Amino acid sequence: MYELIDGKATSAAIKEEIAEEVKQLVKEGAKTPHLAAILVGHDGASETYVASKEKSCSQVGFNSTVLRLEDDITEADLLEKVEAVNNDPGIDGLIVQLPLPAHINEQKIIEAIKPEKDVDGFHPVNVGRMVIGLPAFVSATPAGILELLKRYNIETSGKSCVVIGRSNIVGKPMSILLSQKNDFGNATVTLCHSRTPNLKEVTGQADIIIAALGRAEFLRADMVKEGAVVIDVGISRIRSDKTKSGWKLLGDVKFDEVAPKCSFITPVPGGVGPMTIVSLLRNTLLASKREIYK
Amino acid sequence: MYELIDGKATSAAIKEEIAEEVKQLVKEGAKTPHLAAILVGHDGASETYVASKEKSCSQVGFNSTVLRLEDDITEADLLEKVEAVNNDPGIDGLIVQLPLPAHINEQKIIEAIKPEKDVDGFHPVNVGRMVIGLPAFVSATPAGILELLKRYNIETSGKSCVVIGRSNIVGKPMSILLSQKNDFGNATVTLCHSRTPNLKEVTGQADIIIAALGRAEFLRADMVKEGAVVIDVGISRIRSDKTKSGWKLLGDVKFDEVAPKCSFITPVPGGVGPMTIVSLLRNTLLASKREIYK
Repeated sequence: MYELIDGKATSAAIKEEIAEEVKQLVKEGAKTPHLAAILVGHDGASETYVASKEKSCSQVGFNSTVLRLEDDITEADLLEKVEAVNNDPGIDGLIVQLPLPAHINEQKIIEAIKPEKDVDGFHPVNVGRMVIGLPAFVSATPAGILELLKRYNIETSGKSCVVIGRSNIVGKPMSILLSQKNDFGNATVTLCHSRTPNLKEVTGQADIIIAALGRAEFLRADMVKEGAVVIDVGISRIRSDKTKSGWKLLGDVKFDEVAPKCSFITPVPGGVGPMTIVSLLRNTLLASKREIYK
Repeated sequence: MYELIDGKATSAAIKEEIAEEVKQLVKEGAKTPHLAAILVGHDGASETYVASKEKSCSQVGFNSTVLRLEDDITEADLLEKVEAVNNDPGIDGLIVQLPLPAHINEQKIIEAIKPEKDVDGFHPVNVGRMVIGLPAFVSATPAGILELLKRYNIETSGKSCVVIGRSNIVGKPMSILLSQKNDFGNATVTLCHSRTPNLKEVTGQADIIIAALGRAEFLRADMVKEGAVVIDVGISRIRSDKTKSGWKLLGDVKFDEVAPKCSFITPVPGGVGPMTIVSLLRNTLLASKREIYK
């Protein structure tokens, strides 16, 4: 019988730990951690994400600020806003909610954020430091997955691990982190993607599978070996006549079929998703305590 | 019958190409590319490497400068020297020959080099940009290996590739580069290391093997499948009574045994080694032409 990895409960527990630490820090005279988010335009999903980040900040006792900017803002003006936050000693972490309007170069904006405040971990300096094995802000989703593995005492050392999907914010950093020379790495990692011809054969040998390709119910039972650990990063919104909202959320894993073969598996929703925001809070706390960049 | 990948001949050909391009650029009024090397102390191997880099610069028509510093230099003084080169508009690329004396923090020195002049590609900004897929100075050995694969028309797309060794300057960047979404990537890469329990099984399935663990003659015939491409990054100096010098150079691959099973294989010496210095020249040329950082 498989064990369900409960991301919702784990994230709630970590939020309580963070809240406790913030209370203690403030009692000792430290400043309250402060996360700023820049939101350009009125995209529905972006609004939802930013609102949820604000709510999470308030739950753990952080200050948060949302800078709302219209979607006709020029790149130069946006860069100026980023620079202002960079220079504001009261703000510890800055995220710029993506996507940005087409006339703005996203990469340029990301690189304008001071690495010391880049709690999303998207800046090349943080990516590079993570790869090299230096202290760094690690991208929220891979950091959240590592935290789940730790909390469920899932050994990675010496295991074979397959990551499906080579995105910059999940697949690539995940593959590097799991193969690093440390207690929560030391796995033999294979990074698979759209050009992997024999995917079923590769995943079928894995002790741990991280599915992060973004295709609903892609991973089927015949691709997974008995006893595997399966982490589902995908989240697709699919029309459904069985739910009130008319939508349902599906992961990259065909859960009902795959779960019975697993030792551990994450559900969607309630698996990796809630951990992502917790990683962002954790990074903001680290930024506030100057633990990554001294 | 296997084909030998001749790194010596390839590097000589590339040097001629670079020399031709430099001649052309200078004729058009551009400045002569200029590589500076900082050499601290009098380590024999370091002296040899730096001398060989100087010689290569002169072969392709670059200017080169070696800053020789005593090994009792303080970290602060060394940082000042790096800063002076950073600010010297006449110098395009800077390498600091490693290792540095124990009282100096190597990472701090590497991070002090301006990313725009970091032609070794060791700075976190260059590592991060490489991972993200942005223009970057790529570490010389993996860049040299990619160049060999290209010149020998060895397809990587859709192939299974195993990298043995997870060093920051070879294994990790190599694994990322081969899995990138581009013509010279698109391989399914497995990164193996000292904690991989079933290495023989993993390498035995690979179309391409990059051996970069630094253990003489580690890769044996029974670890390689028929028709594989084998790239040997290792170079160990072993005592021998059969050579005049009393030493011989061995790679990470037991060549005589493995070669007959291969489609392509690099020798040691004369394989990957000569390509490394060519990558450094190529990076210096790119720096001089401002092609990575506009």
